Amino acid sequence: MSDQFVPVRRGRGRRPAAEVRAGVLASAGQILMRDGLAAVTFDRVAKESGSSKMTLYKWWPSPGMLAAEAYFAQSEQALEFPDTGDLRADLTTQLTAFVRLLSDGGTGSRVAEIIGAAQMDPDLARAWKENYSAPRRELARARLHAAQQRGQLRADADLEIIVDHLWGACYHRLLVLKVPVDESLVPRLIDQTLRGVTPAGA
Amino acid sequence: MSDQFVPVRRGRGRRPAAEVRAGVLASAGQILMRDGLAAVTFDRVAKESGSSKMTLYKWWPSPGMLAAEAYFAQSEQALEFPDTGDLRADLTTQLTAFVRLLSDGGTGSRVAEIIGAAQMDPDLARAWKENYSAPRRELARARLHAAQQRGQLRADADLEIIVDHLWGACYHRLLVLKVPVDESLVPRLIDQTLRGVTPAGA
Repeated sequence: MSDQFVPVRRGRGRRPAAEVRAGVLASAGQILMRDGLAAVTFDRVAKESGSSKMTLYKWWPSPGMLAAEAYFAQSEQALEFPDTGDLRADLTTQLTAFVRLLSDGGTGSRVAEIIGAAQMDPDLARAWKENYSAPRRELARARLHAAQQRGQLRADADLEIIVDHLWGACYHRLLVLKVPVDESLVPRLIDQTLRGVTPAGA
Repeated sequence: MSDQFVPVRRGRGRRPAAEVRAGVLASAGQILMRDGLAAVTFDRVAKESGSSKMTLYKWWPSPGMLAAEAYFAQSEQALEFPDTGDLRADLTTQLTAFVRLLSDGGTGSRVAEIIGAAQMDPDLARAWKENYSAPRRELARARLHAAQQRGQLRADADLEIIVDHLWGACYHRLLVLKVPVDESLVPRLIDQTLRGVTPAGA
């Protein structure tokens, strides 16, 4: 976490705000991964990060939103969208990382808990959509658009439906079907998304 | 609700169990649709259905599971899988009904609330999977299998991925992307699922 986004306040021995914020997010992320969303309370995060509860109340409207931001911070690097020019290879790289995250003992259930809680909590739903799902959909759309410009996808292909077909399929299994998601799904998912399922000439 | 599944107990002027059960489910369904999942409490359902709370405790382990069963009962008829032999037409019929249910002011958010609560409640998750999502996935798979037998789908098509691509895409928008789902999505979704997105000959 750089000082760029959070003004650094010094004086009377206080730690810089950016440092405090990074520490709080790291503690919240650890608690989330270890013990689940319900364990992420302001009390516990304040204690484990050595920050005041007042600071937490000032920065996050609810423990759920703190937990969601901690998850975004942890997953960001793992979920980059490569562009080597080879669409199928790049989708395989990104989706394999995503499926690993969902199936990596525990992380999948944490994602499920955050999305689950968002269905009853409009503030958390807004934070999830604005900070995570909408920007990630836009990153995917941009990568697919580049492929479309190069003629690797049909000009009339609906790129948002491709996003539903690749990442949405994984979320469907995680949240709705409640069946395990593993890497063996990735090549079949990509192939069927790209080629469809009707016989040649049909 | 028929007497077939629930043994009818009579005596001392009590209503038959099946009738009581149907009345409880109808009340729970009304409360769910009108006021949301959190409003479905044993207290309120007992009061509105004229049943004893003891009866409710005996039949349902939690109010969430009662609400889920009420939703299954209400949606069952609307979500039948037709087989006229025309795969595209049948998928259009079923998915249009499904999308209408998800977008029909309120029902979509009730489904989202039930699935959301299931992410934190293992009993509700099991009830949702066993009574709703697994049987519905199997109905869809059976309809797709019939099409595959008739040569309307490639022999190597993964039918479970087709389920993810059609119904999963709608759930992805409802639960994860939090964007409106409407009927205009249906034909594009079906077309892209069947035909894929790569240019001819690619």
